Amino acid sequence: MARVALDLLGGDGAPEVVADAVVTLLQDDADIDLVLVGPPDLAVELLTVRGVSLARVEVLPAFEVVPMDANPLEVLRIDAAREVPRVSVMVAALAVNSGAADAWVSVGHTGASVTAAVLACGKVPGMTRPAIAVVLPAIEGPVVLVDAGAFLDATPETLTQYAMAGWSFARTLGVVEPKVGLLNIGHEPGKGDELRSLAFEELAARLPPLGIDFIGNIEGGDAADGLRAQVVVTDGFTGNVLLKGIEGTVAWAAHRIGGAYGDLAPARAVVREVASGDFAGGMLLGVNGVTVVGHGSGSANGVRACVRLAARAADRGIIDSTRSLFASLVVEDGG
Amino acid sequence: MARVALDLLGGDGAPEVVADAVVTLLQDDADIDLVLVGPPDLAVELLTVRGVSLARVEVLPAFEVVPMDANPLEVLRIDAAREVPRVSVMVAALAVNSGAADAWVSVGHTGASVTAAVLACGKVPGMTRPAIAVVLPAIEGPVVLVDAGAFLDATPETLTQYAMAGWSFARTLGVVEPKVGLLNIGHEPGKGDELRSLAFEELAARLPPLGIDFIGNIEGGDAADGLRAQVVVTDGFTGNVLLKGIEGTVAWAAHRIGGAYGDLAPARAVVREVASGDFAGGMLLGVNGVTVVGHGSGSANGVRACVRLAARAADRGIIDSTRSLFASLVVEDGG
Repeated sequence: MARVALDLLGGDGAPEVVADAVVTLLQDDADIDLVLVGPPDLAVELLTVRGVSLARVEVLPAFEVVPMDANPLEVLRIDAAREVPRVSVMVAALAVNSGAADAWVSVGHTGASVTAAVLACGKVPGMTRPAIAVVLPAIEGPVVLVDAGAFLDATPETLTQYAMAGWSFARTLGVVEPKVGLLNIGHEPGKGDELRSLAFEELAARLPPLGIDFIGNIEGGDAADGLRAQVVVTDGFTGNVLLKGIEGTVAWAAHRIGGAYGDLAPARAVVREVASGDFAGGMLLGVNGVTVVGHGSGSANGVRACVRLAARAADRGIIDSTRSLFASLVVEDGG
Repeated sequence: MARVALDLLGGDGAPEVVADAVVTLLQDDADIDLVLVGPPDLAVELLTVRGVSLARVEVLPAFEVVPMDANPLEVLRIDAAREVPRVSVMVAALAVNSGAADAWVSVGHTGASVTAAVLACGKVPGMTRPAIAVVLPAIEGPVVLVDAGAFLDATPETLTQYAMAGWSFARTLGVVEPKVGLLNIGHEPGKGDELRSLAFEELAARLPPLGIDFIGNIEGGDAADGLRAQVVVTDGFTGNVLLKGIEGTVAWAAHRIGGAYGDLAPARAVVREVASGDFAGGMLLGVNGVTVVGHGSGSANGVRACVRLAARAADRGIIDSTRSLFASLVVEDGG
């Protein structure tokens, strides 16, 4: 039974939307143990209004958020140095680091969550920096897109790390032998800019010795059908543009295709289903603690989906399997 | 009545698919005058089999294509130096330059078409290099995505040129006051990598004096709904990934949403409609001759859509309006 710390204060609709998600989680997800991170008075008020027994949810006190215009690193370093930290993402991430929770979730400011995770839990040895992995809806799914926007630039080395961590995550999701593809503008080797050329060589050299199937270059459309690869590796700029493009296109397509049937309801239901599935959450890869950052609208269903994803990843030991994979690389390099 | 030169030899399905498109164009598009560019014997054979009167189509002799693994610039420079060029894209582009045709279309090797257009027609003064503009399907109106893959990298200056040429193209498509957005990973100013930061400043300084509304940063999803901007400016790598991602997502969504209705046919009809509309063609911006390069599957309907787009752009004087816009910039810089 995974214990998931949930940031009550993060996200446009917080705290109401997060509280709504808590109600559904308590009803439907008996295998998840929730720890609500926020002001205890507020938590009590929100839960009481919703008729939730306070006995069922532990509350971890936190009182502040990182302002949108602030530098998260500055704010969180100061908070981490406090005897008792006060910022909700810091308190949640520290709970995972101390073992008080198995995973944590915030649908607030992504930069703040990434920074809190790194400060509180540290990075996986061998991973230069974390990356965000998003589970794309695909015809043959799921497809893991990494990096979806944690860092804008990339190097052949960081792309290789993304591939390894993304492969580990895809296995956690139940994909038996995930294939890795490098996002590019054509399938042929040699396509793309200098970064892709060098990354292609690096991935082709590094992944097979680890037992990871690198299938070469893939295109934007391959991410949407999942037929060629189940792990799509790219820099955070391109990944973020593609992710949001896919999200927007699903909305457009529902509008247009639903219109062709003369009844938008079933199309809208598909959009809601996608938005409230694994697609709602971004799994932060490369930190020593299961961290899910929400993206998209941040509805109550989206928050619930993030918590479920976090619980599943914790139950299946994503951190240990990622660490083992990187450890085997270190041994190999030394050998 | 626009005269459009059509490359009979370009594309995976050539020459059959191109010939199929000719049949429909002759039936349905009385306002387009076709010039078929390819081996005359082959053209006669293909048209006769399809019951088309040879009197209705002029044929411009061409016999070769640029091989996929060749360097287009090398092959086409040699061809251009011949007394009578033999490569179909070169012959077609030269026809536009000489005035024998008003526009030309190829659904073959994009790099070869771009190179032929530049060699045969030259660039618009003020435009450092050409860019491919694709008309995205969107909830509101057409959205012009530029660059969709002519060049992988970009600078603040070339992105500004793409914005100007894309704005001119959007007006050609009937958008009265197209708004320009810079594709980025968030809406707030200051988002993105160094290129986006610098480009933001450049666009904000350059476009308003030309009467072009620059609305700032937009995200991938905005390209899909068209609510914020009708011209989306980005480097060719990101543009190509987004374009193919949108294309793949439409196919995915049709599969998934159509499934929700228990009848895939209307959803598939939407995909076909999109694929056989303006989306099928890439308008090459920044060259002195109307050039449309096909992308995607290259079905007969797609080829027809490219020809229609080329004819419309020629009829509405896209080259003159783009040249005037850049000329006004030159005057301003000098003043």
